[in-house]
Amino acid sequence: MTTFSGWAALAAKEALTPFDYEPAELAPEQVEIAVSHCGICHSDIHLIDNGWNISKYPFIPGHEIVGTVTARGSAATHLAVGQRVGVGWQRSACLACELCLDRHDNLCPHQTATCVGHHGGFAGRVRTDGRYAFALPDDLDGAAAAPLLCGGATVYAPLRRYGIDATSSVGVIGIGGLGHIALLMLRAFGCEVTAFSSSEGKRDEVLAMGAHHFVASRDARELHKHAGRFHLLLSTVHAKLDWITYLKTLRPNGTLCLVGSPPGVLQIPAGSLFQGQKSISASEIGDRATIAEMLRFSARHKIAPVIERMPLAQVNAALDRVRRNEARYRVVLDVPG
Amino acid sequence: MTTFSGWAALAAKEALTPFDYEPAELAPEQVEIAVSHCGICHSDIHLIDNGWNISKYPFIPGHEIVGTVTARGSAATHLAVGQRVGVGWQRSACLACELCLDRHDNLCPHQTATCVGHHGGFAGRVRTDGRYAFALPDDLDGAAAAPLLCGGATVYAPLRRYGIDATSSVGVIGIGGLGHIALLMLRAFGCEVTAFSSSEGKRDEVLAMGAHHFVASRDARELHKHAGRFHLLLSTVHAKLDWITYLKTLRPNGTLCLVGSPPGVLQIPAGSLFQGQKSISASEIGDRATIAEMLRFSARHKIAPVIERMPLAQVNAALDRVRRNEARYRVVLDVPG
Repeated sequence: MTTFSGWAALAAKEALTPFDYEPAELAPEQVEIAVSHCGICHSDIHLIDNGWNISKYPFIPGHEIVGTVTARGSAATHLAVGQRVGVGWQRSACLACELCLDRHDNLCPHQTATCVGHHGGFAGRVRTDGRYAFALPDDLDGAAAAPLLCGGATVYAPLRRYGIDATSSVGVIGIGGLGHIALLMLRAFGCEVTAFSSSEGKRDEVLAMGAHHFVASRDARELHKHAGRFHLLLSTVHAKLDWITYLKTLRPNGTLCLVGSPPGVLQIPAGSLFQGQKSISASEIGDRATIAEMLRFSARHKIAPVIERMPLAQVNAALDRVRRNEARYRVVLDVPG
Repeated sequence: MTTFSGWAALAAKEALTPFDYEPAELAPEQVEIAVSHCGICHSDIHLIDNGWNISKYPFIPGHEIVGTVTARGSAATHLAVGQRVGVGWQRSACLACELCLDRHDNLCPHQTATCVGHHGGFAGRVRTDGRYAFALPDDLDGAAAAPLLCGGATVYAPLRRYGIDATSSVGVIGIGGLGHIALLMLRAFGCEVTAFSSSEGKRDEVLAMGAHHFVASRDARELHKHAGRFHLLLSTVHAKLDWITYLKTLRPNGTLCLVGSPPGVLQIPAGSLFQGQKSISASEIGDRATIAEMLRFSARHKIAPVIERMPLAQVNAALDRVRRNEARYRVVLDVPG
């Protein structure tokens, strides 16, 4: 009998506890991965807390997984045993529907998630769909690569969707796990980069990450100084903001793209959209081709998320840091071999 | 002394009365046009009523102008005396700012409007900026062309912006002056076309215009039948609608584009955007290149707006038809030569 060991939530909002389980037999399309690192994403906390009413307990969180293939099913021939791979939020898609065929497998209605209804990466091993295990370029450090798998994909996909390049001016709202990766990527794209943060204390770090401008976002007057500036505004926060003022910071034809989900309803006067033909949209992770491209891009441009490394055994302390928004900027768990 | 004769509002919300004025001297960039036809747009009524607090009285409305050049300024050499031209909402732009240079002169911050602060086309003659007088293709009927200049440009521009082609499925909300032109254009693009109308009585006409589906939009159950269908939803109405349900009719990555301005604020749960990465945007008329293209497109595809023709002397009766939404589908005033 095979046993996998990890850290599971036994009920909503509880601290994780050591937990063993017997994995299902390795299916033809699956790979087994010996986890070396796993990032902590706010979504893990939503799942632990049953914030989306989709959690089933016990379950092991973790969907920014880096590790090494230890076994592969008969159909997972594109990966080799011993190969280093990464796994993100998405576990599978049908790969047959119109959306999958059109390179939008991240929007597949039949998709499953790595740690929803399955055990995730806060564990020594996982078995998962090899079609969503991405070969990691050699140049990527394993620990620093972990946050790219979900957080990195989430901010990279809209940059590509909106054609961001070295002529673009982009604003990032919220400089945390996602936002700081966006800054690093935008610097690599050669953009003019503006960071909006409510934490004045992050100013120096943020400028060092390559942002050209730091805006203390609690001060509406500061926001107004940037009127008409951005082709794209990427909002990474899960909070209600002054959307009308942020829309004014877009240049004509600009887009406010949400990757963090604010609570309640957005209240938008139509005039805020007509004035300069602006758009509001949202983006969810990325399709497989975009994630693979993002990993190659990150390796070539040396995108290294700023992380705090903690051992898996300290997962509860690590989760607390993320809950309190203290992590600068992403926590990655080291998983013993 | 030159005198131009038209029909003007002398104060907000008043009926128009015959009105003579002495035009300013023809400037180098201007042309003088003998008006043959002028469409009536809802914006004319907003201006008569001072609905946007920008109206100055007396003023002559009218910004869907078709006529013949009778004189040109020294710099208006691209047009010939005797040539048939059309003029729409926009009267001028700086043609020097970043937006103008980037083919977004319709968003120029220095733009002026044909009948805001100037006298418009409910008149025998107008003098206006020749750079916004568009040569009319010979194949376009003068009366039917009038509504293209504003209404046509307004619905055509987003079709081009969103890359609509013969593989697209597009929904049009509101089948009035703008909406019915959208149906005719979408048929020419080869789209799958769905019309949403609160007027069941328009069903047969709408299907005859080339719509594949007619949806009685007062019935939410009918809307739900079209979930996941549209690449683009064009909303031409100035009313508060069930935006959450309409967003559901978009396919993933689809866009709800407003060309009619609903009152109050749009109330949009972020989840309605995240579910399928949807967008909400707005569009304002079109740039010069797009309007010129639209006129050639309309000539080649025989886009003939469905109009009611009335003589200029009956302008008040005509305005009443538009105010009561009785026009099917656009009223065009015949201006005596």
